[in-house]
Amino acid sequence: MGKLKYRIEQDLIGSKEIPVDAYYGIHTARAAENFSVSRQRVHPELIKAMAVVKQAAAETNISLGLLDPNIGSAIFQAATEVAEGKFADQFIVDALQGGAGTSTNMNVNEVIANRAIEILGGNKGDYSLVHPVNHVNMSQSTNDVYPTALRIAAIRLLVYLSQACANLQGALQAKEAEFAGVLKVGRTEMQDAVPITLGQEFSAWAEAIARDRWRLYKVEERLRQVNLGGTAVGTGLNAERKYIYSVIERLRALTGLGLARNENMIDGTQNADVFVEVSGLVKANAASLAKIAGDLRLLSSGPRAGLGEIRLPDLQAGSSMMPGKVNPVLPEMITQVAYQAMAQDLAITLAVQAGQLELNAFLPLVAANLLPAMETLSKAMNLLAERCIKGIQAVPEKCLEHLHNSVGIITVISPHVGYDVASELAKTALKTGRPVRDVILEAGLFTATELDELLRPEEVTRPGIPGKRKKRN
Amino acid sequence: MGKLKYRIEQDLIGSKEIPVDAYYGIHTARAAENFSVSRQRVHPELIKAMAVVKQAAAETNISLGLLDPNIGSAIFQAATEVAEGKFADQFIVDALQGGAGTSTNMNVNEVIANRAIEILGGNKGDYSLVHPVNHVNMSQSTNDVYPTALRIAAIRLLVYLSQACANLQGALQAKEAEFAGVLKVGRTEMQDAVPITLGQEFSAWAEAIARDRWRLYKVEERLRQVNLGGTAVGTGLNAERKYIYSVIERLRALTGLGLARNENMIDGTQNADVFVEVSGLVKANAASLAKIAGDLRLLSSGPRAGLGEIRLPDLQAGSSMMPGKVNPVLPEMITQVAYQAMAQDLAITLAVQAGQLELNAFLPLVAANLLPAMETLSKAMNLLAERCIKGIQAVPEKCLEHLHNSVGIITVISPHVGYDVASELAKTALKTGRPVRDVILEAGLFTATELDELLRPEEVTRPGIPGKRKKRN
Amino acid sequence: MGKLKYRIEQDLIGSKEIPVDAYYGIHTARAAENFSVSRQRVHPELIKAMAVVKQAAAETNISLGLLDPNIGSAIFQAATEVAEGKFADQFIVDALQGGAGTSTNMNVNEVIANRAIEILGGNKGDYSLVHPVNHVNMSQSTNDVYPTALRIAAIRLLVYLSQACANLQGALQAKEAEFAGVLKVGRTEMQDAVPITLGQEFSAWAEAIARDRWRLYKVEERLRQVNLGGTAVGTGLNAERKYIYSVIERLRALTGLGLARNENMIDGTQNADVFVEVSGLVKANAASLAKIAGDLRLLSSGPRAGLGEIRLPDLQAGSSMMPGKVNPVLPEMITQVAYQAMAQDLAITLAVQAGQLELNAFLPLVAANLLPAMETLSKAMNLLAERCIKGIQAVPEKCLEHLHNSVGIITVISPHVGYDVASELAKTALKTGRPVRDVILEAGLFTATELDELLRPEEVTRPGIPGKRKKRN
Amino acid sequence: MGKLKYRIEQDLIGSKEIPVDAYYGIHTARAAENFSVSRQRVHPELIKAMAVVKQAAAETNISLGLLDPNIGSAIFQAATEVAEGKFADQFIVDALQGGAGTSTNMNVNEVIANRAIEILGGNKGDYSLVHPVNHVNMSQSTNDVYPTALRIAAIRLLVYLSQACANLQGALQAKEAEFAGVLKVGRTEMQDAVPITLGQEFSAWAEAIARDRWRLYKVEERLRQVNLGGTAVGTGLNAERKYIYSVIERLRALTGLGLARNENMIDGTQNADVFVEVSGLVKANAASLAKIAGDLRLLSSGPRAGLGEIRLPDLQAGSSMMPGKVNPVLPEMITQVAYQAMAQDLAITLAVQAGQLELNAFLPLVAANLLPAMETLSKAMNLLAERCIKGIQAVPEKCLEHLHNSVGIITVISPHVGYDVASELAKTALKTGRPVRDVILEAGLFTATELDELLRPEEVTRPGIPGKRKKRN
Repeated sequence: MGKLKYRIEQDLIGSKEIPVDAYYGIHTARAAENFSVSRQRVHPELIKAMAVVKQAAAETNISLGLLDPNIGSAIFQAATEVAEGKFADQFIVDALQGGAGTSTNMNVNEVIANRAIEILGGNKGDYSLVHPVNHVNMSQSTNDVYPTALRIAAIRLLVYLSQACANLQGALQAKEAEFAGVLKVGRTEMQDAVPITLGQEFSAWAEAIARDRWRLYKVEERLRQVNLGGTAVGTGLNAERKYIYSVIERLRALTGLGLARNENMIDGTQNADVFVEVSGLVKANAASLAKIAGDLRLLSSGPRAGLGEIRLPDLQAGSSMMPGKVNPVLPEMITQVAYQAMAQDLAITLAVQAGQLELNAFLPLVAANLLPAMETLSKAMNLLAERCIKGIQAVPEKCLEHLHNSVGIITVISPHVGYDVASELAKTALKTGRPVRDVILEAGLFTATELDELLRPEEVTRPGIPGKRKKRN
Repeated sequence: MGKLKYRIEQDLIGSKEIPVDAYYGIHTARAAENFSVSRQRVHPELIKAMAVVKQAAAETNISLGLLDPNIGSAIFQAATEVAEGKFADQFIVDALQGGAGTSTNMNVNEVIANRAIEILGGNKGDYSLVHPVNHVNMSQSTNDVYPTALRIAAIRLLVYLSQACANLQGALQAKEAEFAGVLKVGRTEMQDAVPITLGQEFSAWAEAIARDRWRLYKVEERLRQVNLGGTAVGTGLNAERKYIYSVIERLRALTGLGLARNENMIDGTQNADVFVEVSGLVKANAASLAKIAGDLRLLSSGPRAGLGEIRLPDLQAGSSMMPGKVNPVLPEMITQVAYQAMAQDLAITLAVQAGQLELNAFLPLVAANLLPAMETLSKAMNLLAERCIKGIQAVPEKCLEHLHNSVGIITVISPHVGYDVASELAKTALKTGRPVRDVILEAGLFTATELDELLRPEEVTRPGIPGKRKKRN
Repeated sequence: MGKLKYRIEQDLIGSKEIPVDAYYGIHTARAAENFSVSRQRVHPELIKAMAVVKQAAAETNISLGLLDPNIGSAIFQAATEVAEGKFADQFIVDALQGGAGTSTNMNVNEVIANRAIEILGGNKGDYSLVHPVNHVNMSQSTNDVYPTALRIAAIRLLVYLSQACANLQGALQAKEAEFAGVLKVGRTEMQDAVPITLGQEFSAWAEAIARDRWRLYKVEERLRQVNLGGTAVGTGLNAERKYIYSVIERLRALTGLGLARNENMIDGTQNADVFVEVSGLVKANAASLAKIAGDLRLLSSGPRAGLGEIRLPDLQAGSSMMPGKVNPVLPEMITQVAYQAMAQDLAITLAVQAGQLELNAFLPLVAANLLPAMETLSKAMNLLAERCIKGIQAVPEKCLEHLHNSVGIITVISPHVGYDVASELAKTALKTGRPVRDVILEAGLFTATELDELLRPEEVTRPGIPGKRKKRN
Repeated sequence: MGKLKYRIEQDLIGSKEIPVDAYYGIHTARAAENFSVSRQRVHPELIKAMAVVKQAAAETNISLGLLDPNIGSAIFQAATEVAEGKFADQFIVDALQGGAGTSTNMNVNEVIANRAIEILGGNKGDYSLVHPVNHVNMSQSTNDVYPTALRIAAIRLLVYLSQACANLQGALQAKEAEFAGVLKVGRTEMQDAVPITLGQEFSAWAEAIARDRWRLYKVEERLRQVNLGGTAVGTGLNAERKYIYSVIERLRALTGLGLARNENMIDGTQNADVFVEVSGLVKANAASLAKIAGDLRLLSSGPRAGLGEIRLPDLQAGSSMMPGKVNPVLPEMITQVAYQAMAQDLAITLAVQAGQLELNAFLPLVAANLLPAMETLSKAMNLLAERCIKGIQAVPEKCLEHLHNSVGIITVISPHVGYDVASELAKTALKTGRPVRDVILEAGLFTATELDELLRPEEVTRPGIPGKRKKRN
């Protein structure tokens, strides 16, 4: 006689074989079949957050005498394990699920129930000991549990994202300092403009990321209002009043997050606009990253036939066909991650606007896009900072060559020689194809020393008219 | 001899006929030809904001002795007129223009110059009196004027949008109060759920709009940092230091807005992420509006073969073919305006992420989408509030019929009769097709009075177990 | 002495420990670290398609005497195994990778090389036997291999998607026939309009899906032109002419697809617009599905307090709190899958438009969105057809009740009684709240039999004036 | 007594003053007030197309004896004038209108009615002569007229767009021929790769636009199926059968387009997926344009400190601050137009997927985005071809300098000297910073003549191994 491979579970629809070792049960199994579409499972941070909600609910139910303490303790322990990331392979429902998250909730309920049964010494599937709905889901509805857990997961990933911004900002600022003296030509509309330092270019990037960091830090408070206790439509029908007030407190203690009860839980149950708000800021971060990644690819283009003003660290061998070719693979990854986040923002917006009446049935789509977007951007920024930005080298001679070759420096001497003379010099340079610096020197208007003095970084890259500053101050 | 129709103007490229009465000049005329693509002109709020910048620059240039006071006064007066909306038909450049806004800047410069010439008694086109570049654009670059003006225009429309949110919120809250006693069935995933009041439905909508209002109000401060004085790339090259400090102060005085100098003007010149941030919040507003508009269309569907729980005011005759048909035209308009704003957010994001090095050449695309999105949403919300929400009537008998017919009320009596008895009643109702209320009464578990007592709005639409509340308190 | 766990591999950058059992090598390992961001790996269909390209290249290289037949045969066998889906766990590089697909190409090269080494009796990592670049990648560049493989994978999933459309179309058409006699009210702008049959509603959905099927079938030919042989930039530099002509033939034979050489391989290497084209059609499919899913949710709303004209099969238990509640989980899943595909279309568009000069570095983003979109939609349509559409039941009595209750039937009798009388009857019905049918009968204008005759489905749901048709024909 | 300024008109809602000279009437006036949101009016091509439908309907109604020939002739004449673009200022309803296009239909009906009244010698507003609904709209419903007209307008603009593609393709191909001999370095991932000609770069752009042209040409046939005659929901209720068959024929004759009756008019009334299909192709065109515009900006960057390999014609004076600065304003305009079209595609998709049951109420949003997108892209491509592409000049000396300086040519000599020697030369060049060509010559491996021979465009930019080709052939 071989070992049994399946146990039989039942629901209103009928019975079904469940692998005997599975912690999930029949509701999970049905949902896994119904929604097997995307190769993408529910994000682990959402599972963890749902388990924390189960912890809080179990504690509250015990304290109010609604739940047997033995059962409650086993549930709490099981939920704690899930909240720590255990049993990750038991969460098998597709991320793109119908049912407004019910299947994720039931998956969590069943895994916790079966783990609790195990803790109490029973056999998995013996729900007379611990019942997924009656015990684990007690006083809850998917309609309040799911949005609450999604907010918790989003807050946690926001913190991670904000930290990644800080890392990137730090790396950029270190380079801002390192390259403060590297004078080069600025470019507007891809055309040669006036002088700037390479450090200033890094400072502009750092500033954008600093803004992202600040926005993401600030928006966290918008996510704190949860509708736990609202039950089906947010009215709190059939929920004990004491439960409602108590469960948030415990959730706050368990998570360490400043969660609060949404005072209008009907609103909190049906409206998901906060996720559009958060995603909009994630998208702003993505837009800044796409801009920075594009600039990095421009400035490192070449190495010989491009701008070539910076050199990115070499992370992996380039072309087998073209020896020595190194590609800007991290900026390219960043661009794609940023574009993916913009697309994910669209999915989130579509899901949110399509909510109907007392519930938004499409929160699983929000979760399936928002959480990965935040996680992926975080990891990408950390990699960019560590593996690319920190190793960037300036190519100062190329920077100077471009500057001296460009008409940009005409603008610097213009206030000294007059607009007409300056224009004449520019024309001569363009006609002869010779470096502008040489043309200026030959015209005998300045000595090389005087010109170098005028073109000192601290002269040409700050407000004011170079060479006229001292006299005035 | 007839009257001359054209004057001749010249630039570096050559000469060109300009209509003799035109306030614009050759740069505008060339740009109008180069970019004649979209039937959409530059938004008037942007023109007005640019004129305010010209006012501030003229004042500052006079005070620093850079600009002849006679010329300066004429410029100031002309700019004031443009800032008030005059000469609107002289701004003929397409909204989708290349050149990072230079053509809009030149259009404003030329109109102000020619109007100033007129004020000084000269003939239009005689730039020896007032020169568009040397005088009107003095100490400025498109690269600092344009982003500064775009921020001012955006702030002004944000205030308008926020006020429109307030109007809509007010209208919804008035209905929330009016319909506080209209009991009805709540619906989740379009399926009958538990009781709710019509007032609560309006409250959830009002709450979402209140959030929009708050967000839009708060984000205004992010737009206040301007890069005026940064000249070409944000370094402030060739700009007098005193000018930089003074011009913002005057701009603040002229606009009454809390504008401040961006401390990193290189960042302020090239980065446009703030517009993605603002647009993301505008999009959140749009998503909430789409949700509300969808709900209004659902609840007013019918009038006979739909939900029919509310009646929208009749704004225009319906079908010629089907007498009496009235369509929810304002919610339909809202849905489209919301979708347009989502699309505009995409255009803005695309423009911002595509910035290169020291400038974002695509700010005109940002302007061409952000300003119309804000203005259109504002007007749409005002129309929705005035012409639709305020005139909505409840159909309480339909609401009650739906509630009494639905299994939702089974959930209310469940704690009193037990889950099993409740399920049995639900099954009977579904099998026989009879109203649930009738089935409950016939089962003899409650008198009609008792049932009405249980189903009082204040019982079933607040947290707690209906009928058990008083005993416990 | 324990067993060795790692082997050491080297590249230009240095050396690295590789798990001794791994088929992948150092290039893969570095890439896996560089791009560990998204939890999403390269789609298996792309891996399989790349392996087919390797088969074709190996065959061609052998036949031209470029590759030792022993080595070539081992490579061919190894590539065949990968093309069959083996070693799936060895493809560990993140889907969102920089490098234009080089890392995926190298991952495939290394796995095939090590498997070929194994076949030849060597130890993994001993690239003197079979070299990933010199042998497996012979005559190839990522720049021609990757776009070619992406097209093959896309064609294969297109066929799958088109078949799924056929399945769904078939299921809808079966219901079209089944419900041909179920008369009901049509609704325009969610307002009661004129009669229609439930079968006709299914026919409109079927027609939309039929169009999708046709479009997706037709667009396949646009994907057939491949740039294999173009090497680095599409000029074919350093590739034997015979190789170029031969390798496509072999690829055609191996895949059974009508592939052809792009006559302008420079175009084929840098331009990816065909993926925007294909994705646009996938998005059209998604839009139709979203529309159909919305309709299914509307028509099945209730069951008591909604439209309730159809009943969806019950796939999984509904709310624990509300007994008997069943949610339209498959249509909800469809809506989300459709929205995800719309978002993926955006990511694809962003990637394609951002191509620069001789290459599009963002094809990995195209792959990471296009292939999942097609696969997920396919699976979702199959599930919708099998688990939802086939089990839908009409609720004819509800359909008739709505029709008889609506003013829509006034339009039917209007040509018989005149517009004025019809309008009067409509007003009476609306004022009294009574069914329109009753009002008409009471007015004595028709007997019940006459009215039933007029309202026969075949009368009111075809072109022409009901009741006047026979006389005229 | 002054002249009367207003006439009074009435509808079911009440009476209203209409300007006495207005051709529009009360329905238009109400709609103009209800939807005054976007500053965007209905596109003139849609108005013209609606007028053509009115022509066809009038002809058919006369021929079937449904419409008095005197009235009908006046209507036909009036409709002809509108179809020619007259009375354009009388179409005052906002493009973002609710009501599924009813207001546009009524605007057209009213203008035609009043113009017909005028033709018959009556006073505007005297609808006893010609009635907007009873006569002008006879046998029609907005639900069939509007989608039909939208398809006609879309076809006409498609033809225009396709012609613009042809213009651009022609301009690019002329340059392809002109620059066939300009050898330069190819770049992949912005890094120096192998040689290519400037002509080949133009050929790749031309190829992409040729594909656009073909796609747009082919998709026209998808738009030909119209639902005219379907009346309210597509069943054709109350429409004479003869009318249905006749009106399409007349429409075909009037437009010269291959229009056909949709055999499933219920589908044709509610489904709008064809517009997603068409817009998806318009978006593909936009993506190609964005790619080309980006390349043009890269290649023309500089002129001194950028790639500088081509020179764009100077269209308008550049910066006032930086003499001689010329910006790539047309490519910048193209990028923005392309991004706008991508956003418009999103709006169209949103509108189409949101259709409900028997009608898509959001077709006005489709019209408000699709028609402008096509028109704007057409005009933009024409401007790009005429004002930019045709005037582009190559800078061959810069192209050669880049090529000779780059390691790309190492790849060319690699088959002759072996991979190891080639790599050594590459390293030397990179270490010393000297041009690769000089390093090769100094190594004494080739004479200058031999190297020039190897690097001839026809050698290095075609398939095969340069220098080995002749011997083999």
